[in-house]
Amino acid sequence: MFVRNCWYVIAWDHEIPPEQANGKIFTRTVLGEPIVVYRSAAGFVALADRCCHRGAPLSKGRLEGDNLRCGYHGLLFNPQGQCIEVPGMASAPAKACVKQYPVVSKNQWVFVWMGEPEKADVALLPDNYSSGSPEWRNVPGYLHYETNYLLICDNLLDFSHLSYVHEKTLGGSTAIAQSRADVTEVSAPGQRGLRVQRQVSDVPPPPSYQRIHAFKGLIDRWWDYDFLLPGTLLMKSGGYPAKGNTVDTGEVELHSCQTLTPETENSTHYFFQQGHRTGQGDSELAASMFQMLIRAFDEDKDMIGAQSARLALAPDFKMFPLHLDSALTRFRRLVDREIERDSLPMSTGHDHPAGDGDGQNHDKPSPSVAPARACATA
Amino acid sequence: MFVRNCWYVIAWDHEIPPEQANGKIFTRTVLGEPIVVYRSAAGFVALADRCCHRGAPLSKGRLEGDNLRCGYHGLLFNPQGQCIEVPGMASAPAKACVKQYPVVSKNQWVFVWMGEPEKADVALLPDNYSSGSPEWRNVPGYLHYETNYLLICDNLLDFSHLSYVHEKTLGGSTAIAQSRADVTEVSAPGQRGLRVQRQVSDVPPPPSYQRIHAFKGLIDRWWDYDFLLPGTLLMKSGGYPAKGNTVDTGEVELHSCQTLTPETENSTHYFFQQGHRTGQGDSELAASMFQMLIRAFDEDKDMIGAQSARLALAPDFKMFPLHLDSALTRFRRLVDREIERDSLPMSTGHDHPAGDGDGQNHDKPSPSVAPARACATA
Amino acid sequence: MFVRNCWYVIAWDHEIPPEQANGKIFTRTVLGEPIVVYRSAAGFVALADRCCHRGAPLSKGRLEGDNLRCGYHGLLFNPQGQCIEVPGMASAPAKACVKQYPVVSKNQWVFVWMGEPEKADVALLPDNYSSGSPEWRNVPGYLHYETNYLLICDNLLDFSHLSYVHEKTLGGSTAIAQSRADVTEVSAPGQRGLRVQRQVSDVPPPPSYQRIHAFKGLIDRWWDYDFLLPGTLLMKSGGYPAKGNTVDTGEVELHSCQTLTPETENSTHYFFQQGHRTGQGDSELAASMFQMLIRAFDEDKDMIGAQSARLALAPDFKMFPLHLDSALTRFRRLVDREIERDSLPMSTGHDHPAGDGDGQNHDKPSPSVAPARACATA
Repeated sequence: MFVRNCWYVIAWDHEIPPEQANGKIFTRTVLGEPIVVYRSAAGFVALADRCCHRGAPLSKGRLEGDNLRCGYHGLLFNPQGQCIEVPGMASAPAKACVKQYPVVSKNQWVFVWMGEPEKADVALLPDNYSSGSPEWRNVPGYLHYETNYLLICDNLLDFSHLSYVHEKTLGGSTAIAQSRADVTEVSAPGQRGLRVQRQVSDVPPPPSYQRIHAFKGLIDRWWDYDFLLPGTLLMKSGGYPAKGNTVDTGEVELHSCQTLTPETENSTHYFFQQGHRTGQGDSELAASMFQMLIRAFDEDKDMIGAQSARLALAPDFKMFPLHLDSALTRFRRLVDREIERDSLPMSTGHDHPAGDGDGQNHDKPSPSVAPARACATA
Repeated sequence: MFVRNCWYVIAWDHEIPPEQANGKIFTRTVLGEPIVVYRSAAGFVALADRCCHRGAPLSKGRLEGDNLRCGYHGLLFNPQGQCIEVPGMASAPAKACVKQYPVVSKNQWVFVWMGEPEKADVALLPDNYSSGSPEWRNVPGYLHYETNYLLICDNLLDFSHLSYVHEKTLGGSTAIAQSRADVTEVSAPGQRGLRVQRQVSDVPPPPSYQRIHAFKGLIDRWWDYDFLLPGTLLMKSGGYPAKGNTVDTGEVELHSCQTLTPETENSTHYFFQQGHRTGQGDSELAASMFQMLIRAFDEDKDMIGAQSARLALAPDFKMFPLHLDSALTRFRRLVDREIERDSLPMSTGHDHPAGDGDGQNHDKPSPSVAPARACATA
Repeated sequence: MFVRNCWYVIAWDHEIPPEQANGKIFTRTVLGEPIVVYRSAAGFVALADRCCHRGAPLSKGRLEGDNLRCGYHGLLFNPQGQCIEVPGMASAPAKACVKQYPVVSKNQWVFVWMGEPEKADVALLPDNYSSGSPEWRNVPGYLHYETNYLLICDNLLDFSHLSYVHEKTLGGSTAIAQSRADVTEVSAPGQRGLRVQRQVSDVPPPPSYQRIHAFKGLIDRWWDYDFLLPGTLLMKSGGYPAKGNTVDTGEVELHSCQTLTPETENSTHYFFQQGHRTGQGDSELAASMFQMLIRAFDEDKDMIGAQSARLALAPDFKMFPLHLDSALTRFRRLVDREIERDSLPMSTGHDHPAGDGDGQNHDKPSPSVAPARACATA
C-alpha cells in the first residue's frame, strides 16, 4: 500500500538525455508500475511501459520524433499514450492506448504523479532548491534498495542512528543519540510532512565536515529538516565552534535533498545529493563529499537490509516504541491517513492540502504539468 | 494447464547417445514431470525420473544392460518401469514401479506421450520430414526459455513481429507487418492445428537469404506453415524475384521444423532447425544459417522474456486483440478445447481426431510405440 | 514443524572465539530463529538476534564487556537479554528485552535449547565423548544443506546407501545394502532415539580404512550407532579380518559424532567429525580422513539435493516403504510424537524422559545451564 496522490521522483534528469544513447529508452518501475520516460519537443513524456496489445515493454521499441513505437509488433503511440498506428490496419482502434502519467521536472529531479491525474498539482512539489542552484555544488546519487521504503523512511526520520551506524563517517559522537529531536507537523500550504530539528553541543567534528573546514576544537552541530510525503528529506545542517572553542572561527552549512521512491513493496529507489556552498573547499570537495556520503549510505543499506531480513523471518514482530521513534511513528500515521484519503471517491471533495494552497510556496516560476489523458484499457 | 494427450519432443536423438558418455543418463522435465530417457536393445525407454522408493532421480543411477539402477539404495527397474530387484530382499514388491511413458523417435526428434498411454498414436506425430532427409541440410538447435510456452506460441503464430524484432536478421521490411496472413484450420486426419500463409511483394531480401542466393533486386517472400498441437511449427518459406525484378533468376526455399515443449508453467524447451536443400550454397552454409537463426531467436527470447516480466507485474492485464492476433487467438482456443477434452472420462469415447484418421497421413513407415504399463504408485 | 524441547547444536566452540576477530559476533539461525552467541565471563550467552526495538540484528552491534549493544540505535542488552540502556533515556523500559536461550557447551559442541527454558536439562545432551577426548583425533566439519533436515536423517538412518552413493569412498561393496540392520529403541534414561546395528562379512576394506590399517585380505565390517533426537548420530564402527583372512591381524575402530540442526524448513546445518584413536596412523591421518569424509558427504549432499528437488516438483509423492526403511520410519514417528508432546500444556506434567532420569548417564561432571529469563516481547 502506497500513497498514490503524490509526486514521486522517477529519475535525475541527466538519466534521460535528449538524445537516447544507442537507442536505449529510459524505464523504471514505480509503485509496481513500469514507466517509460522520454523527452518530446514539449517536454518529458511518461507512459505505462507495457504495450496495450500484448504487454511488451515499450522501452524496448524506438522513438520516432515525439512518438514511441513498440518493438514487438510496431504499434505507435503518441505522447498522450494514444495508439495512432497499427501496422497493417487503416486506422488504430480508438480504445488502444497506454496510461499516461503526469510528469514534471524541477531542479534536476523528474517527478511522476501516481494518483488521479486531475489532482496532479505542481504546488505539491518539494522545494529541492539546492539541486538546481548555481550557489550550491553537489554530485547527484542513486542507490537501489531491496527493502520496503518505510524502513528507509524510519532511518531518515531518526538521526540517533548516526552515533552507531555512522560512528566513523557522518556521526562521531554518542551525543547525537543522547539528544532529543523536536518533531512538529509541517504546516505550510501544500506540504504534508514533519519538521525534525536536533542540536548537540561540544562534539568533535565528523570527518565529513573536516573537508570543508578543518576545525581544531569541539563544535556544536545542528540538523533542521522537513520530511515530506512520500519520502522526501530537505535538510539544512551544519556545525559551528562550541561555546568554549576559541580556536575556530568558520562554520559548515550543508543542504541535502533526498527522496525515496518505492519500486515495489520490497524494493526502493533512493535519489540523493548533499551540497555545499559554491566556492567552499577545493575543486575535489564535491567528489570527496559524495564518496563519504556513499560510504555512509552503504552503512545504512547494510543495516537496513539486515533488519529487513530479520523482519522477513518474523512476520509477527512488533516494533518496541521508544521516545526516539516519535518522528517515524507520526510519519507512518501520516502515510496511513493519506492512503485512506486516496481511497475516498473524488466527488466527496475531501480536504486535499493542495487545494488549500494559495501558491505562496512557489518562490520561482513553477514547472507546469499538461492535463493527462485517461486510458480505459491501461 | 497443458494438453496432455499429445506427443511432446523431449530431445534431439543425438542428445541420447547409445553409449552414455561418462555415465550420464539423459533427463529432462516435461509438463513438470522429470523423465529419464535411455536406449535399450528394443529402442528408447522413458521412465519417470523419480524412484518410487524415496524420490531420488533415477538418472543419477546407472544402466545395467536394459535396466536402470537407482543410485541411492540400488533398486533396479526394467524398461517397463517395474522394479525387479531390491538389494537385501528376496524379491521386489509387485507394486514397486515407476511410470513408463510411451516414447518414439521420428526424424531425429524423440517424443514422449504425456496423456493416457492407450491413446498414444503415432499417426499424431508431426511430419518433420526435412530433419531426417538427405535432401535437406541443417544444424539442430535448442534453447531454454524462462517463460510460459504460450507466449512463444504467440510469437510463432504471428510473423508481423519479423518487421520489428528481426528488423536486422530475418525481417528487413515493414511490409511483413503490413501484410495480412491467411489463417485456416488444418483439416488433415490426425492433425490438430492451424495453417498460416503470408506473402509480401517487392521487399529487399533479408540477410539470411543472401547466403543462399545473392539477390540483386527486390523479391517477393512467402511463408506457409502448419502450427500443430502442442506447439509445433512445420514451415516452408522462401523468396523469388519480384515482378519487376529482371536481374535475378534464382529463388530460395527453406524448410523449418520447430517445436515447443513446456518444462513447467514458467519455462519451455525449444527445439528447432531451419534447413535448405542439399547442394545449395557452400560447405559453411548450414553453420552460418544456424548462427543467423540463433541470433534471431535470441532477439525473440529477449523480447518475450521482457514481455513475460511485464505480465508478471500485472496479473490482471488483458491483451488488446487486433486483426494480427487471429492465429494466436484461434490457437489458444484450440488449446483450451483440447485441455477440456483431456479431462473427459475415457469411456465416453469422445471424438478424438486420432480416432478419426484412416492413417493416410503416413507417407512412410511409421515408428511404432510399445504398449505402456500402468504403475499405480507412480 | 520441529521438536522444540531439545538441545540443538548451533556451533563448534571454535567458531565462537573468546575474542571476536575484527568485531564479528557469531550468529546462526536455528528452527527459523536467528540467534546471536557470544562468551561472557560466566560462559556462553545466546540471545535472539533481533533487537526488540526495530528488529535489527544484534550481531551487527558490538560487545561491551559481557553486554551487547545494538549497532542501529545503541540499545544495550545484558547476558539475560534485558535491555539495560537506551541512549537518551534516563532508564530503559522494563519490558524491553530479547529472548534468552539456554546454552551449554559439551565436548566442543555448543548447544541451544529451543523449547520451554524450564525444561532445559543437561541430562539430555548427547554423549559426544570422542570430540573432547585426548584419546581421539579428528577434524571437525560443517556443511550447509539446502534441504529439509528429515531427508538427511533418513540418509543417516539407513546405511544401505553406502553400497551405491559411496561406492568409491565409504562403501565399496553391495554387501552392505544386502545386509539387514537391527533397529531397537534406545532405552537409557534421558535418551530419545534408535539404536542401529549392522554387520557384513567378507567384504573388501573401503579406501577410508586403508589409511589406518593396510588390510591385504577381506574383512568383516560393523556399525553400531545411536541416532538421537533431534538428529544426532553417535557411532562406533570398524572392521577386522574376515574369518578366512589369515594375512591381516590389525583392526580399525572409529568413533563419529554427527548432528543435524534445522536452519529453516528448507535448510539444515550439519556438524560432524569422525575420529580415530590417538597414536594410530601418521601425522596426516586426521586431515586425510577428513578429506575422505568431506568427499563422501558431498556425495550424500548431491544425492539428497537431487532427491529434494524431485520431491519439490511432486508435493503428493508418497515414499514406498521397504524393509530397509525401518529405522527412518520409526524415527519419523518418534519426531511426530515429540512434536505432539511439545504442544501439550506444561501443567499436565506429561512424561518427559528427562524427568524420569536419575542422572546416571552423566559419566563426567555435566555442564550446567543457568536459568533463562522470560521476555514477554520477544
